[in-house]
Amino acid sequence: MNEALIKEIVRRVMDIIGENNTIPVEASARHVHLSEDHIEKLFGKDHGMSKKKELSQPGQFQYKERVTLIGPRGVLKSVAILGPVRNKTQVEISKTDVRTLGINPPVRESGRLDGSGKIYIATERAVIEANESVIIAKRHIHMTPEDAKRFGVNDKQLVSVRVRGDRSVIFEDVVVRVNNKYKLSMHIDFDEANASGYKDGVVGEIII
Amino acid sequence: MNEALIKEIVRRVMDIIGENNTIPVEASARHVHLSEDHIEKLFGKDHGMSKKKELSQPGQFQYKERVTLIGPRGVLKSVAILGPVRNKTQVEISKTDVRTLGINPPVRESGRLDGSGKIYIATERAVIEANESVIIAKRHIHMTPEDAKRFGVNDKQLVSVRVRGDRSVIFEDVVVRVNNKYKLSMHIDFDEANASGYKDGVVGEIII
Repeated sequence: MNEALIKEIVRRVMDIIGENNTIPVEASARHVHLSEDHIEKLFGKDHGMSKKKELSQPGQFQYKERVTLIGPRGVLKSVAILGPVRNKTQVEISKTDVRTLGINPPVRESGRLDGSGKIYIATERAVIEANESVIIAKRHIHMTPEDAKRFGVNDKQLVSVRVRGDRSVIFEDVVVRVNNKYKLSMHIDFDEANASGYKDGVVGEIII
Repeated sequence: MNEALIKEIVRRVMDIIGENNTIPVEASARHVHLSEDHIEKLFGKDHGMSKKKELSQPGQFQYKERVTLIGPRGVLKSVAILGPVRNKTQVEISKTDVRTLGINPPVRESGRLDGSGKIYIATERAVIEANESVIIAKRHIHMTPEDAKRFGVNDKQLVSVRVRGDRSVIFEDVVVRVNNKYKLSMHIDFDEANASGYKDGVVGEIII
């Protein structure tokens, strides 16, 4: 097989598979999910948290309140808090943020916090130490069981996704997460968004 | 053709093409190339610039001196200056830097500066306005004519390259640059390095 032919096959295969596989892509900024206990410590027992806006995933929203993240090397101010309240506090940052803060958390799926990073979270009222809370969120796709059937993929499967921003990238090892409460959406962080020239409205195609 | 078969073909084609196509990858931090005139204005006419270290591309080096970049929204301090001197000043930053500075330069190949971004460059001695100087460097591969022959590619050709960091990515539209003064190396910026989980020693494979 000569190289021109191989290229043509790859291109056509990608086109064929890509045709009906468009997925909305969203770039997630750094954010925290807080436990009830941590909300009380950071904002006070009688402070009623205020909802700012609904997010794309049903039931998820952003609070008006914000926090500061403090690492050994630097600080990130005005970090968004997402609701609803979780059992364990989880802090999701990018590798660029990692350099700013001076910590070394793992790339992980949401919820897998054993052995994850430590950070201090601060408000005007208090500073708390959040052990095993910090991850770099592994890129993933939320979808319903119907979507999964249509794309021919399963929960937890790793797929490759082409994101065609102004500098096209194929992200490999993207985790599929299937749940009937989800809405179809691929989540990448700002490093990934910047690397692919992402803008609002850009879509991804599952290619492998 | 069913999807499993298509997947298998793509995987095998990539393996075949990837086998002998390993390319060292380097992550380029933000930096500036200065014109003679701008060096004189920023450091003074009789200031002899000091070489700090040689870079991977033959004849390229970093100066000990550094500059500050000033945009409408923010500032980046201690930015590296690379030599030798160029005819026109060129500032290469990432999309993350673009947000910090508050400017909107194009993604471009080195040297293509018409219509590129404006920035202020400062030292303790002076501040200069550098019009048509700022680009987000388009990812590219430096190689010799012998490398190009081995890979079966030509100068200015766009190729796809898999960079297998701790989150594997295939960068599409990577520009091949062929010159017998070059040394084989793929250059990506820090957004791209972060998005692919790049570490020193990671290599790329041309796959298309």
